[in-house]
Amino acid sequence: MPAIRHALTTTRRQDFAAWYQEVIQAADMAEESGVRGCMVIKPWGYGIWERMQRLLDARIKATGHDNCYFPLFIPLANFEREAAHVEGFAKEMAVVTHHRLITDGKGGLIPDPAARLEEPLVVRPTSETIIGDAMSRWIQSWRDLPLKLNQWANVVRWEMRTRMFLRTSEFLWQEGHTAHESQAEAQEHTLRMLEVYRAFAEEDVALPVIAGEKPENERFPGARETWSIEAMMQDGKALQAGTSHYLGTNFAEAANIRFQDREGQQQLCHTTSWGVSTRMIGGLIMTHGDDDGLRVPPALAPWQVVILPMLRDNEQDAALLTYCEELRAAIAARQALGEPIRVLLDAKPGKAAAKRWDWVRKGAPVIIEVGGRDMEAGKVSLLRRDSLWDEGTGKPAFTAPDRTECAEAIPSLLVQIQAALFIEARDRRDSAITRDIDSLDALTTYFTDEAHQPGWAEVQWSRPTGPALEAIIERLKTLKLTFRNVPRDVAAADGRCLFTGEPAVERILVARTY
Amino acid sequence: MPAIRHALTTTRRQDFAAWYQEVIQAADMAEESGVRGCMVIKPWGYGIWERMQRLLDARIKATGHDNCYFPLFIPLANFEREAAHVEGFAKEMAVVTHHRLITDGKGGLIPDPAARLEEPLVVRPTSETIIGDAMSRWIQSWRDLPLKLNQWANVVRWEMRTRMFLRTSEFLWQEGHTAHESQAEAQEHTLRMLEVYRAFAEEDVALPVIAGEKPENERFPGARETWSIEAMMQDGKALQAGTSHYLGTNFAEAANIRFQDREGQQQLCHTTSWGVSTRMIGGLIMTHGDDDGLRVPPALAPWQVVILPMLRDNEQDAALLTYCEELRAAIAARQALGEPIRVLLDAKPGKAAAKRWDWVRKGAPVIIEVGGRDMEAGKVSLLRRDSLWDEGTGKPAFTAPDRTECAEAIPSLLVQIQAALFIEARDRRDSAITRDIDSLDALTTYFTDEAHQPGWAEVQWSRPTGPALEAIIERLKTLKLTFRNVPRDVAAADGRCLFTGEPAVERILVARTY
Repeated sequence: MPAIRHALTTTRRQDFAAWYQEVIQAADMAEESGVRGCMVIKPWGYGIWERMQRLLDARIKATGHDNCYFPLFIPLANFEREAAHVEGFAKEMAVVTHHRLITDGKGGLIPDPAARLEEPLVVRPTSETIIGDAMSRWIQSWRDLPLKLNQWANVVRWEMRTRMFLRTSEFLWQEGHTAHESQAEAQEHTLRMLEVYRAFAEEDVALPVIAGEKPENERFPGARETWSIEAMMQDGKALQAGTSHYLGTNFAEAANIRFQDREGQQQLCHTTSWGVSTRMIGGLIMTHGDDDGLRVPPALAPWQVVILPMLRDNEQDAALLTYCEELRAAIAARQALGEPIRVLLDAKPGKAAAKRWDWVRKGAPVIIEVGGRDMEAGKVSLLRRDSLWDEGTGKPAFTAPDRTECAEAIPSLLVQIQAALFIEARDRRDSAITRDIDSLDALTTYFTDEAHQPGWAEVQWSRPTGPALEAIIERLKTLKLTFRNVPRDVAAADGRCLFTGEPAVERILVARTY
Repeated sequence: MPAIRHALTTTRRQDFAAWYQEVIQAADMAEESGVRGCMVIKPWGYGIWERMQRLLDARIKATGHDNCYFPLFIPLANFEREAAHVEGFAKEMAVVTHHRLITDGKGGLIPDPAARLEEPLVVRPTSETIIGDAMSRWIQSWRDLPLKLNQWANVVRWEMRTRMFLRTSEFLWQEGHTAHESQAEAQEHTLRMLEVYRAFAEEDVALPVIAGEKPENERFPGARETWSIEAMMQDGKALQAGTSHYLGTNFAEAANIRFQDREGQQQLCHTTSWGVSTRMIGGLIMTHGDDDGLRVPPALAPWQVVILPMLRDNEQDAALLTYCEELRAAIAARQALGEPIRVLLDAKPGKAAAKRWDWVRKGAPVIIEVGGRDMEAGKVSLLRRDSLWDEGTGKPAFTAPDRTECAEAIPSLLVQIQAALFIEARDRRDSAITRDIDSLDALTTYFTDEAHQPGWAEVQWSRPTGPALEAIIERLKTLKLTFRNVPRDVAAADGRCLFTGEPAVERILVARTY
């Protein structure tokens, strides 16, 4: 087979981490900002996030949630109240201590000592406590329940080692917060939102995920149950792509969220919270990217179809542009995946070949080139980003449909590409989950054998708790492994616990993780 | 005429400021958060903001801008570079000095002295400087121009005296930032975005505005020209509802935004910036609100039509709900103002009358009540929020269309209401602008006569600058007056300057302001 000359300089196989950074740069998605731990999300990256927002927001609204907005700043007292909260992730936080800058007399600026805040404010790392305050004001009776809120916001968790989209000090997310009358209803809602995330990930992001419950050591601080969707990246590592927490009455107690029940008694609410963030974009890259750059699933692509006229600065250009504009209009008039098709006629100056590779690296699902000869034949040259190469020739796999047929075929083509990306990722993941490991030695071998790249192991365990669990986690840590979750939809346990030798009660995923 | 019993306790005439606060509470739009200067935007208020975002975003994208996202935190050095910036509005800013909290050993938390930032970070009050940094990286040649960016974000400007939606320490907005090859192109773009704001305000918010240039003392610090749209509130005061700035090369110089021009020479870019914020919601309230609460223009209403079944907890309820659901579906299948109609069947528990008044106070454009007798007659009881009362009877002005006719009539009804709100506001404003003031004495009398509530004065002036302008501004200040803008679309000056007695060169609006 002829060698293919890929559009990136680093391949996934050579250096997955370097490849990831190169995709972000080559697809012009984001860059370091110069501000510690914060990135700039550029138009193509932000366009993908806007698509994620729109599709996930529709799913969140369809399940009866209202969007609202809570303050960026949270008083220290809220965190003092939430000891459990602070014991967990939330120690590294940006703290606002002053509200004015003054000149230092040497051409510089300093925080004004006279404008020191009496009580420092914390830039929200998450909004449970401040939304809990509001819930305690808004809820009086069972008639006010369930209360189902969602917020799209930026949050800040100070990070020493950052990686674009995966771990940044500031990131964007949605955080849902609900309050319920009963444990059963709140638990049911926790799982309903987990299912919303699963459907969003699989149907919109084309990201196959495994939904399941986290073991106790991986729970959100203060949560009674934490559920997650876990996706496998192309290097075999896991990415937690969304979490849904049943918080019991812990946060209700701290924020005094009470209601009068149907019998007239005061009760604590049962609350939930759940979030998906710009991290999902990192998951998209590491799942669908290839050695030519990003591949964006059509449901998320800011432009699903890009038309490139091969302009030559001559008298034929005007006719070519008209020919392309007619095609653009014919495609834009159609729908795919439930929405009008997003099609761009890119007539900016620049060489056609350079522009083609720009759009390949960005991962536009369909690229259509039109030159003079195409026009004369009433045709176009069409490239599917999800199957870019003709393996036989080592060249891009252009097809040459008639212009009219092309416009008619685009809706089903986009649906096909959406499905193909999902199936490719799901098959890769499924073939990289091993289920036949029945000893710690076998687990060690599987994850340390240099001959292959390990995926995930689904093993049986007895769900130990406390010190027994801690010992296992320490052992896994030496292999750089973590528990991911206990999948919902797998066969019941029927063997022995890999770690304790006791009868197993369920199956759990073990993997390296981001 | 019989007395009307309005839904609010405070009327606009009694106490406009108290009325404003009552509308926000009665329409359940927002509340104080307990965090200094920050509000909680509740679902109905946030739903209106989401509608504003969607409609304005579409206009911004249609004029060729890409959305992106820049860091919340800005290094102190950026502000030191921007002396002009800091001289202006930006001294009162939230300053982050630490990145960790630790316990103080007494059950409290304090910023960790060991986690003090070497260089404090400022929570963005606006993003000119950080976006300028990005532009200097992204722009090399004239081929990269124009660069047209927009960001939807939260910003913080520390405020001592706050008022919900009008002046809060944290607020939400969009900020557009563009870079151009030439002064002419940048100035043209500044006016294009001003026109986008005018069209958004008048067509979507139904807010009549006057677009014009600010006098030099009202310019954004560092701007060469500042343009605004000014709206008149029902108390006669002005609200600046959006601004568009031509920044010259000032920000380009500070951030080193240069490009190689068509002749190969290095040039500074000419930049613009422009913003609209949640303040627009305050303008909506003070323009369309009445003594029964808010009135939301249909284009912005989260629910344009609300159907209230008069349930009686008896066997007829099921049939009534079916009857209402059929109506809901028939309305939802239609479009108005270019989008599917947003219609809610509100079957929550609660007395029908109480629910009616809740929706009146929230300002849903059309409220449809359906009782058993309506159903038997194949009819509904319909209330237009923009003309709520029958002056003759002092009761709500219900009409009783057939159910089928009602569904058919909703699209044009919503268009009518949108237009009626605009016309009402425009007529009120137009009749409250006086153009015949030709002396400072007359101006003083107009704005201090207790017998009437003053509106705006459009006066002729000679556009003095420097100390002459400052003296005039001081004089106006004693009357609590400010210059608003020099309207674009008015007759040329033909008289003497009200302030200097010199030949006038243009007309300028004088008003009290928010």
